[in-house]
Amino acid sequence: MKSKADIRMRGFLKRTPVNKLLELIKEHSHLLSSEEILTSEASGRTLAQEIISNVNVPNFARSAMDGYALDAESTFGASTYNPLIFRIVGQLTPGDTYDAEVQSGEALSIMTGGPLPKGTNAVLIAENAELFDNKIQILDSVTPGKNVGQIGEDIKKNQSLLKSGRVLRPQDIGLLTSIGLKSVKVLRKPEVELLITGDELLKPIEQARGVKIIDSNSAMLSPLIKRDGGLLNAVHQLPDERDLLRKHLIESNADLLCVTGGTSLGIEDHGPTLLDELGELLVHGIPMRPAAPTGFGLIPGKSNCDVKKVFLLPGNPVSCLSAYDYFVGRSLRLMSGRSEDWPYRKKIVKLATKISSQIGRIEYVRLRIKKNRAFFIAAGGASILSSTTEADAFLLTEQESEGFAEGDEVLVWLYDE
Amino acid sequence: MKSKADIRMRGFLKRTPVNKLLELIKEHSHLLSSEEILTSEASGRTLAQEIISNVNVPNFARSAMDGYALDAESTFGASTYNPLIFRIVGQLTPGDTYDAEVQSGEALSIMTGGPLPKGTNAVLIAENAELFDNKIQILDSVTPGKNVGQIGEDIKKNQSLLKSGRVLRPQDIGLLTSIGLKSVKVLRKPEVELLITGDELLKPIEQARGVKIIDSNSAMLSPLIKRDGGLLNAVHQLPDERDLLRKHLIESNADLLCVTGGTSLGIEDHGPTLLDELGELLVHGIPMRPAAPTGFGLIPGKSNCDVKKVFLLPGNPVSCLSAYDYFVGRSLRLMSGRSEDWPYRKKIVKLATKISSQIGRIEYVRLRIKKNRAFFIAAGGASILSSTTEADAFLLTEQESEGFAEGDEVLVWLYDE
Repeated sequence: MKSKADIRMRGFLKRTPVNKLLELIKEHSHLLSSEEILTSEASGRTLAQEIISNVNVPNFARSAMDGYALDAESTFGASTYNPLIFRIVGQLTPGDTYDAEVQSGEALSIMTGGPLPKGTNAVLIAENAELFDNKIQILDSVTPGKNVGQIGEDIKKNQSLLKSGRVLRPQDIGLLTSIGLKSVKVLRKPEVELLITGDELLKPIEQARGVKIIDSNSAMLSPLIKRDGGLLNAVHQLPDERDLLRKHLIESNADLLCVTGGTSLGIEDHGPTLLDELGELLVHGIPMRPAAPTGFGLIPGKSNCDVKKVFLLPGNPVSCLSAYDYFVGRSLRLMSGRSEDWPYRKKIVKLATKISSQIGRIEYVRLRIKKNRAFFIAAGGASILSSTTEADAFLLTEQESEGFAEGDEVLVWLYDE
Repeated sequence: MKSKADIRMRGFLKRTPVNKLLELIKEHSHLLSSEEILTSEASGRTLAQEIISNVNVPNFARSAMDGYALDAESTFGASTYNPLIFRIVGQLTPGDTYDAEVQSGEALSIMTGGPLPKGTNAVLIAENAELFDNKIQILDSVTPGKNVGQIGEDIKKNQSLLKSGRVLRPQDIGLLTSIGLKSVKVLRKPEVELLITGDELLKPIEQARGVKIIDSNSAMLSPLIKRDGGLLNAVHQLPDERDLLRKHLIESNADLLCVTGGTSLGIEDHGPTLLDELGELLVHGIPMRPAAPTGFGLIPGKSNCDVKKVFLLPGNPVSCLSAYDYFVGRSLRLMSGRSEDWPYRKKIVKLATKISSQIGRIEYVRLRIKKNRAFFIAAGGASILSSTTEADAFLLTEQESEGFAEGDEVLVWLYDE
């Protein structure tokens, strides 16, 4: 008996609207659990704890300039008519201390970052003092606190510095380092496994021969998975054998699996029926071209409360790219706490050619951009990967539109960063 | 005798305009030599060869759909009034071959990607045929070539696929893999060395104590260098000892060195005089705040024709960040053949507060963005790293402007990707 999911050689019963698939992805792309990693390796990762400082930075008052530390009150009244003379009692560089107390009428030569000694509360900058015979003459007064970095000026003890959910920036890593935090709790990376199916496929390390072609999808998906914060922990090249694919789906420990190939209506397309058998086939077939045979489902994870997300990606490389980018990348970014937005830069350009689209269908259109004008790349079948390397950008037509007219201003996404 | 470069405790003689420094960086940031790496690891790297395919992809005509391969001419005349019957002679899946010749009146069941057998030149899609008793009935004719992917439809033998200088995209890696290219020549990554100077600094793994602070610059710069395509091959924490810094500058094998700290006018600021002694101090002091004590110079490399770029970065972390971002990152991107543009996203926002700037000086201003309105972060000294973690964005004032008025629309750069 054929299951409902078995639509092989019959055609999709019902395509799921793309928005519905996006909703399902959002619903099922839960944040992952956290792990503790070295602060020095946490840039770009998502914080899974609030950071509260247990120290002041700095923990001592320090000079903000190269100059002379002195008691501000003792400079009051200084002017060009009443120059005041201070005796230099020493010289202090950062990391060093001056243990005696500086007296009124004395000044200590101090470098930026040097700790203010007792008896001083201001720093006169070097350029504003006239140095002679181990003395300085000053022509203007300074106010208390001038050019002094107070205790905690950067970070105060007990201050909340970063909230959970923050995607850590390079300067955050600097900040966490400055409070002495050697490790930090972040969301773990989603673990991804690729199941590349197809009797016609050769591994990337093999030589093309006869009626076999080299699998290019795994090579293309690897850097994309990395870009989206995923950890690709296995790539399996599998023949079109239902039991073998079944075994891999069951045994995988990954959070997310991508099955490429075997997702359409051919007799060797086992992905959909396997998802139906092992778990839940939520979506199979979407009104998007290429990428129409995309599927999405859930199967039980290794532990009871756990679930593995499975994406069925068409084997044709352009379909595979667009389905990955539109659906899988988004899921990975959501799981790792990042923005679901595309990492591509947007641009508004004028269409130099018209673009037709069938109502009810979203088209993934590749474009060449010249001087802010976009030219449609005609050689655009699902199997023509070179169309995505020749293109500068892509756009997606709206589902309820017939496309765009020549001269329309359209939003495109640039392939290059 | 003091050298011209020795302006310690005296003040900058002459600040170099920021544009002049950018020009010098461009002039000296030559493309690096190339190296051969695995294609699978080349995403994001810059191609240092032209790629010409020596194969056709595919190397055989293949079905573009699931359906029936047949001779198009034998379907001519088929219509609802004149249904034609074809006998199914077998079934072909991708990677397999059908060795006999298909005769007129016969059809072969074929899956997407399957090689077209002899005697056929078109594929009738499965949905358009009525299957019964190992025969199909068709109600419409097909044209020769219909639903057939011809030899070389994706890539033609001797076709130029990618030019030298291309920053490789994930789909480029797929393309190179599909023509069997296992390794590829790319520009090597610029090697970077950090010389972190300051007696007051502790290594990131130490505990803050007394008048010492933890170096946060190396932790912050590491991910930035990685982002800009650099390879950080050494970090040295050095005390303020001229001879030690001198030794490291001479012995380094890096393409680019960043010296943090010791770049200003203090008595322990050895960077500028060392550059002057060992090579050429091109710039010291720029009209930018923070980051005024930034320096740039060249010293001889290990081989005769070679030169090491040296950036003197202020030790204060905000200065260090802005000087890195504005100058060093750009140099690294240029050396590795990427766009010199900032990797930050741009946005136009309305200023909620006025921003004052001194004419003749560029200010690096940190801003909070709320509902497209930008708020100035007041606590903005060069040592307040937390100002860059609290901020959402930054802007740079124009050198010849007094800043911006409240309500002005300004271009800002977003810290987050």
